[in-house]
Amino acid sequence: MSTAPRRIRMHERDNVAIVVNDGGLPAGTRFEDGLCLVDAVPQGHKLALHAIAAGQPVLRYGVCIGHARQPIATGAWVHERLLQMPEARALDQPLPRPEPAPALAPLAGYSFQGYRNADGSVGTRNILAISTTVQCVAGVLNLALQRIKAELLPLYPNVDDVVAIEHAYGCGVAIDAPGAEIPIRTLRNLALNPNFGGEVMLVSLGCEKLQPDRLLPPGSLPIADAQASSRVRLQDEQHVGLGSMLDSILAQARAHLERLNRRQRETVPASELVVGLQCGGSDAFSGVTANPALGFCADLLVRAGATVMFSEVTEVRDAVDQLVSRAADAEVAEAIQRELAWYDAYLQRGRSDRSANTTPGNKAGGLSNIVEKAMGSVVKSGTAPIAGVVPPGERACSKGLLFAATPASDFVCGTLQLAAGMNMHVFTTGRGTPYGLAACPVIKVATRTELATRWHDLMDLDAGRIASGEASIETMGWELFHLMLDVASGRRTWSERWGLHNAMVLFSPAPIT
Amino acid sequence: MSTAPRRIRMHERDNVAIVVNDGGLPAGTRFEDGLCLVDAVPQGHKLALHAIAAGQPVLRYGVCIGHARQPIATGAWVHERLLQMPEARALDQPLPRPEPAPALAPLAGYSFQGYRNADGSVGTRNILAISTTVQCVAGVLNLALQRIKAELLPLYPNVDDVVAIEHAYGCGVAIDAPGAEIPIRTLRNLALNPNFGGEVMLVSLGCEKLQPDRLLPPGSLPIADAQASSRVRLQDEQHVGLGSMLDSILAQARAHLERLNRRQRETVPASELVVGLQCGGSDAFSGVTANPALGFCADLLVRAGATVMFSEVTEVRDAVDQLVSRAADAEVAEAIQRELAWYDAYLQRGRSDRSANTTPGNKAGGLSNIVEKAMGSVVKSGTAPIAGVVPPGERACSKGLLFAATPASDFVCGTLQLAAGMNMHVFTTGRGTPYGLAACPVIKVATRTELATRWHDLMDLDAGRIASGEASIETMGWELFHLMLDVASGRRTWSERWGLHNAMVLFSPAPIT
Repeated sequence: MSTAPRRIRMHERDNVAIVVNDGGLPAGTRFEDGLCLVDAVPQGHKLALHAIAAGQPVLRYGVCIGHARQPIATGAWVHERLLQMPEARALDQPLPRPEPAPALAPLAGYSFQGYRNADGSVGTRNILAISTTVQCVAGVLNLALQRIKAELLPLYPNVDDVVAIEHAYGCGVAIDAPGAEIPIRTLRNLALNPNFGGEVMLVSLGCEKLQPDRLLPPGSLPIADAQASSRVRLQDEQHVGLGSMLDSILAQARAHLERLNRRQRETVPASELVVGLQCGGSDAFSGVTANPALGFCADLLVRAGATVMFSEVTEVRDAVDQLVSRAADAEVAEAIQRELAWYDAYLQRGRSDRSANTTPGNKAGGLSNIVEKAMGSVVKSGTAPIAGVVPPGERACSKGLLFAATPASDFVCGTLQLAAGMNMHVFTTGRGTPYGLAACPVIKVATRTELATRWHDLMDLDAGRIASGEASIETMGWELFHLMLDVASGRRTWSERWGLHNAMVLFSPAPIT
Repeated sequence: MSTAPRRIRMHERDNVAIVVNDGGLPAGTRFEDGLCLVDAVPQGHKLALHAIAAGQPVLRYGVCIGHARQPIATGAWVHERLLQMPEARALDQPLPRPEPAPALAPLAGYSFQGYRNADGSVGTRNILAISTTVQCVAGVLNLALQRIKAELLPLYPNVDDVVAIEHAYGCGVAIDAPGAEIPIRTLRNLALNPNFGGEVMLVSLGCEKLQPDRLLPPGSLPIADAQASSRVRLQDEQHVGLGSMLDSILAQARAHLERLNRRQRETVPASELVVGLQCGGSDAFSGVTANPALGFCADLLVRAGATVMFSEVTEVRDAVDQLVSRAADAEVAEAIQRELAWYDAYLQRGRSDRSANTTPGNKAGGLSNIVEKAMGSVVKSGTAPIAGVVPPGERACSKGLLFAATPASDFVCGTLQLAAGMNMHVFTTGRGTPYGLAACPVIKVATRTELATRWHDLMDLDAGRIASGEASIETMGWELFHLMLDVASGRRTWSERWGLHNAMVLFSPAPIT
């Protein structure tokens, strides 16, 4: 990266820009155009391009991210304490919606090597998943997993892995309270993720609240072959001692592994991708480098006919006008408002609001508040019309750009995107997180070259080259698009190579008992 | 077990008894005293000892567990559908409190072999715990744990194990909302569990909401030796690539293991036990065999000067009169009511109530509703005065019988009892659960001989011998007391022998973002 002072303005209306240089810039720094810093400004933080009077809006992404609490001089550091955050847009009335944006031009000719499933979906990996009704079985299942990995997996080389859908739900919960349907349908749809090949194996205890028939009601499985679904219940009288429980689990696992092992990758169109987008450990570069590149790539995916999900309710809440105006039709617009309003009420019940989202790391990285963060977050959704809304825990059942209305919490969002049918995950990060999922490949995109260099064996792509001028948003978007097709075809991401996996975490708004 | 028909009545006022025989008893069965069953009654289910008119109370444990919805004949099966559950006792006024029960007579002369800690507490195991601020670090930490177990643990044979305090909290949460203090103090106090030897090792990410100084504020550790506390932050600039993160974690772990390895067990009085009581997968025998034996044992422990915690708010809610009347003083009585009322409000916010507690397994096992379950649950607290109340996530700081006000959810309760300082866990079960914790030995007590026989390598004690008449509550209580001292001294429980461990699960009533 050049050592000349560099700054980036996102929109022509903006009266602030952010500092690009590693380590920030000292007071007195003079830019090429003569602008001079009156304060030291850390990397990623904002400087005032003009004098801003007290009470005037501070504009970034062409949007008001706050009002100046005091006069701000040209070249001053516009830090979070100088900004009064705007009120959230009320959601009780339908928001105005201009003519829907036209659909993007189709993009033909792209494909990958995937595993075609009986229900029509396509996996990018070939994994045996073992579902559970309740945490009580986790200890026994973990012992069984150790044996499956040691004794069985080597016999079935076409199977990539075996994973337990372990969780804290299933008993000791108010299972009939409002909101309890969310974790239950999440678990049901997780079992049906395309990467699990249509094999549904369930381990239950016996006395738990979440009974197998409640988790997977008869007829709920879109599985033709009855053999593809199996159940082991630890309290069954046939189980005498731990050994017989482990034997039952291994016997069922073997039958599923036999079938999974016979599967082969085949050429499928790029439209079979179901991509979940997420960002975490964001900084001010997230909205400048990685997220715009991802947004460009999202448009390519939508044009290629794929399903693309963006999420993180509290991180798009302040972009509601933009989202509603991009809705493909009135029904989608209404669903967007409904999901955001539901989340407002959920937070309010817990005496909180959207401002609880931002982290110390966000602020250290230059993001003053949730409004600024949201504008940088929603950029990754690109420009396509929003074709649908997926409530938390539901499965996505349409193509195009979807708003999967999940919390922003990285692991909850990832889990809900898996339940929605994600077979490819892209995660952008500025501060750096070693995020990974066992169920799905995760491509991690760094917002800054310094991070990509330092975490050279954790970050899959360096979008910091956009800030340094080495790459454009377009070339980076295309690079990511091709990387996705490679990874979907079997190329392993860094987190897969290392076996770096985080927990699946359920969104469970109802109380425990 | 004899094949003669057997029934058990818990209190002389009771107008129902439960069937003891495996497989239940058919209609027409005649008991020795001439009573004849008019219905088939499953094992553990209730039969009417007298005719009960519609609207009249059905009494078990001498307490009304419901009113008859219709006339019930002598010898009829009193199933859940015949009972109208009583209203919950209002908590808005102080409940009457007779003279506090006298303290129990001291019991001297019992000891075990434990690890004495610098802060005065005593461990029953010698474990390295690695705390985490956030789920983001779990993947890296799991890789580090694999290396620590393979490369380091064999070098330190006096150390029993290394465990990660992994959790879903720490970011993506409303960290300043009411209730957020519960998971935070839980994590803090977990790190201080006596089984972790006063060594506090923390792995953090860097940008997360739960910053290390918020989790462990300077001065919050009762640790004299500064070396005993260490921190690794993955985003620190010194970390170049995954390998250097793993090296940092291993280097810190090695220093802690060195010190832990030098510790020796020594003779300590039984008063150093901090015992957490819990039941799960309960049936109608829970309140007849295992819990009464555990209650007798709890009295022995209190008499020996130990700390004994009973918990599970929704499972003792209906015994509030009994709890308040057993409070050692007015302050304790008030704290009991305060904690139960807090939980009522928590459930109500989620539009639920205590009746959400009972499971299909409870009902299949003969427990008609939460009132009957509560009466059988609270029996395990014995008869000692209640000396104190521990709010969720707080550390117990007094001896005697304490009410640790935790949810009934098995894993949340166990985790909060660990945070309270538990060094010994007793878990009674009727339906059967393979519960285990990595941080603390768990003694599992079966309520029925059939379960203890079938799960011969999972259940540590068979309290079913009380129902069959082979053992008394007293002899079983003493047997459990001696078993506890053995296990505290190093004898391994079944779950330890197999490595059967469940997740720690935080109680987190505030919203996620």
